[in-house]
Amino acid sequence: MSYRRTIKIVCGFAGGSAVLVVAAAAAEYQGCFGHTRAARWSLFNVLQAAQPAVNRTVESTGNAWDFNWDKRDPSALLTNGKKKEVVSEDPSSEQDNGKPKATRNILLIRHSQYNLSGNGDHERILTPLGREQAEFTGQRLAALGLKYDIMVHSTMARATETANIISKYLPGVELVSCDLLREGAPIQPVPPVTHWKPDAVQYHEDGARIEAAFRRYIHRADPKQKEDSYEIIVCHANVIRYFVCRALQFPPEGWLRIGLNNGSITWLTVRPSGRVALRTLGDSGFMPPDKLTRT
Amino acid sequence: MSYRRTIKIVCGFAGGSAVLVVAAAAAEYQGCFGHTRAARWSLFNVLQAAQPAVNRTVESTGNAWDFNWDKRDPSALLTNGKKKEVVSEDPSSEQDNGKPKATRNILLIRHSQYNLSGNGDHERILTPLGREQAEFTGQRLAALGLKYDIMVHSTMARATETANIISKYLPGVELVSCDLLREGAPIQPVPPVTHWKPDAVQYHEDGARIEAAFRRYIHRADPKQKEDSYEIIVCHANVIRYFVCRALQFPPEGWLRIGLNNGSITWLTVRPSGRVALRTLGDSGFMPPDKLTRT
Repeated sequence: MSYRRTIKIVCGFAGGSAVLVVAAAAAEYQGCFGHTRAARWSLFNVLQAAQPAVNRTVESTGNAWDFNWDKRDPSALLTNGKKKEVVSEDPSSEQDNGKPKATRNILLIRHSQYNLSGNGDHERILTPLGREQAEFTGQRLAALGLKYDIMVHSTMARATETANIISKYLPGVELVSCDLLREGAPIQPVPPVTHWKPDAVQYHEDGARIEAAFRRYIHRADPKQKEDSYEIIVCHANVIRYFVCRALQFPPEGWLRIGLNNGSITWLTVRPSGRVALRTLGDSGFMPPDKLTRT
Repeated sequence: MSYRRTIKIVCGFAGGSAVLVVAAAAAEYQGCFGHTRAARWSLFNVLQAAQPAVNRTVESTGNAWDFNWDKRDPSALLTNGKKKEVVSEDPSSEQDNGKPKATRNILLIRHSQYNLSGNGDHERILTPLGREQAEFTGQRLAALGLKYDIMVHSTMARATETANIISKYLPGVELVSCDLLREGAPIQPVPPVTHWKPDAVQYHEDGARIEAAFRRYIHRADPKQKEDSYEIIVCHANVIRYFVCRALQFPPEGWLRIGLNNGSITWLTVRPSGRVALRTLGDSGFMPPDKLTRT
């Protein structure tokens, strides 16, 4: 079994020293919640308040990596009693057994600087500096020499404009727009900030939409995909930060602990096994320092 | 009160669909563990195995941000009944009330490419490409035009050599070496990898040392510090990845989900409030693509 026998979650409280430790262990204990041995999990330890902060090492949170996070893990499909679909265009290929084989590289580009005081999205177009930044980003993406398969961009004006400029440097790469990738409020950030307080309805609508975008774009390769792919997604800071937290299985509410320069490149890889790696976040080293902005 | 009333932790298991939900709520419930109302926490919900994956939104993990993560939160010092130390070199200053005022910028540099087949650390020196990479990093750091206060480097040969080359571009910046920053095994990675399996004793020793390095270098400014600072730390991929997870209060065992190019720049800011932000991770856009390596 690959699960850990002990889970420990330590939650620190803002501004205080109180610490709550909730520990669940796969012991033989039969607690007040009845016989839970079917799940091989039970609780043995609950509360430890105001624990003095003298620990000198840091423990794992105990959370396992969910290999079936994108619901495309072939072994999970088998576990669920569903037959794998054998997809093969070459019947002689014995290796083509329904398992993903290719790695997906997803390059997330934050749009470049735009006119913040514009009245509505259509007026929030790139500034002259923003257009220049997009040229730098396009040049860098071209210089990386990767065989890009597609460039998807948010339908907002600043992302569309950024993508169009980048597109000049990547001739032949298909350009597609998508409403799901528009900027929004993905989930209430922790810690909260005072300068940005969307209404509950914004989280309600945007949260589901941005999660839908995550599920559409961030997942392992289809078993049919034979070669590694390189896809560019031009969108927005909140969307990218949320994608990164979700893809790495980090707390999604932590997205606002990350900052991204305009026109920067964030690179995720998704292996056939479902492993995810962040290769760079907010790379903008290809821009002269006096062209860097974060607006 | 700033703590959340509900904690939900959802743990996915490798390769399976079993889901464990441990939920603790600050309810009036008095469970089998006795009267825990003193801590205003109790448990009401325990196990939910093999939950079907039909959720369409993603919930917060419920973990608050620990503002006293570096044990330098003045309000926590007050809570503990200790008097704030009023540190003022200018007695007329009423604002100098023992609270941190400056932001610390910490630029973490991964050493550049080195001879992997060297026999022992002293033979694992930079390759010609590695020396070239360090020149690019030094040039970029200089071009950023920041008022660097200090450069600390790991005592390992490849980090020392990288720092010495960078140092040429930053005249007047004090260079200090530190054993705590040496490469090692910070904590067992989740998910585990097959190609890298340190012995338990390595985690035992390195884990405490790298955590000690984190506590020495990553914290908010001292109340005495009047201006924002910019510090460079030249060290190693595992150390930097662990620092990032710890600083952002992301699961420390997730450090191996992150990759870093040689000579890349990772930038953390620590605000006087204890807020931490990651401004970039593994930025190496200042290097020509054919000079990029990850060894």
